[in-house]
Amino acid sequence: MTTPSRRRVGRPRAQERPDDGGLTPREEVLAAAAELFTHHGYTATSTRTIAERAGLRQASLYHHFDGKEAILAALLEGTVHPSLDVARRLVARSEASPEARLWALCHSDAALLCGGPHNLGALYLLPEVQADRFAVFHRVRSELKACYGTLLAATEPGSLLSAEDLELRTDLVFGLSESVILIRRAGPDRVPEALATATADAALRVTGVAQRSLARLRREGQLLLAAGD
Amino acid sequence: MTTPSRRRVGRPRAQERPDDGGLTPREEVLAAAAELFTHHGYTATSTRTIAERAGLRQASLYHHFDGKEAILAALLEGTVHPSLDVARRLVARSEASPEARLWALCHSDAALLCGGPHNLGALYLLPEVQADRFAVFHRVRSELKACYGTLLAATEPGSLLSAEDLELRTDLVFGLSESVILIRRAGPDRVPEALATATADAALRVTGVAQRSLARLRREGQLLLAAGD
Repeated sequence: MTTPSRRRVGRPRAQERPDDGGLTPREEVLAAAAELFTHHGYTATSTRTIAERAGLRQASLYHHFDGKEAILAALLEGTVHPSLDVARRLVARSEASPEARLWALCHSDAALLCGGPHNLGALYLLPEVQADRFAVFHRVRSELKACYGTLLAATEPGSLLSAEDLELRTDLVFGLSESVILIRRAGPDRVPEALATATADAALRVTGVAQRSLARLRREGQLLLAAGD
Repeated sequence: MTTPSRRRVGRPRAQERPDDGGLTPREEVLAAAAELFTHHGYTATSTRTIAERAGLRQASLYHHFDGKEAILAALLEGTVHPSLDVARRLVARSEASPEARLWALCHSDAALLCGGPHNLGALYLLPEVQADRFAVFHRVRSELKACYGTLLAATEPGSLLSAEDLELRTDLVFGLSESVILIRRAGPDRVPEALATATADAALRVTGVAQRSLARLRREGQLLLAAGD
């Protein structure tokens, strides 16, 4: 979401910031808003404050976003879009075991949610996010959850579940990945990689995978991720 | 938290509400604030709006709470205090199996978080809640998590874990109970009892309990809860 890229030229900048790591103005706005929304609150933050923190004039901010809601929408979408891309690739890799693919998806999703400088998942629970303005975020998140359901249904324990139990189990496995948001809030010193691995292991346990298969499936899942998924 | 009780007399009331279910003025304030904080946002809600919704004069509100933060603190504490009481009783019942007691704790905690008219757990992630004003909430929540850890360590799979793995596993099992907050937000039509049972089952799976023991432990856990825990 905030991968460094070449600075765009010609945008007015209110002040220079020496330590901006070469972000584009759009990325500067997102980085500033991520910090302000998670530390000071969404309602309490104005576009003016975001522009100041980003080192931009307010007019420049409005060149990239039509307001605060659009900035929030972009931040929220950035927490699910990369995982949906991974999920779609994993669903398509039908030669690999569904259990290993589910492990890989949980690891990748949990790592995204507990990585990065700010706990953006905390913004999911804002009442404002129920509004139509955030329909894309909700749609992408639903599609991501549906990929969890597809992989879960293809596992050996999942194939034995009723439709109703499969839905509940999917809620729980998806909820487990997202619970790193709450874990991270309570214990900000957790090591993201260790937490993501433990979360993916736990997801297979919730799925109903036997303890004796876990180490092998974890290795298979790690290989899938190393291969670019 | 909002159990009906005898109406306190002698408090000034701005207007009568016929459908208040016999709540005390303090409970009316908490019920009104729960709705407003979860639907319109904490920052966007004033004590004046809360008083109006509760059918009280603002002065009456300040008779019970010294401000908006105190109301939020009371709501947050109401989401963890009852579970800590249950947890302490379960930890003390050393004649019952730790697995069944952990099931009972997860069920009770998840049922509290997904029951009630408003998703109060959504307020955990407010940036404001990091402040010292909410130290009691954080302390009670930590004590509750420590009870999860105590029961988890006493289970057969838990007794084999290193201290570090036990800490991670406790994070995940506690996170699973709390993930009903996120599940409830995304799917408000979930049946609380079914979700709480599925969550408690999943917690035992994450603990490492074998599939074949689950049905028996669930029954034992249900009996513990029926017995008053």
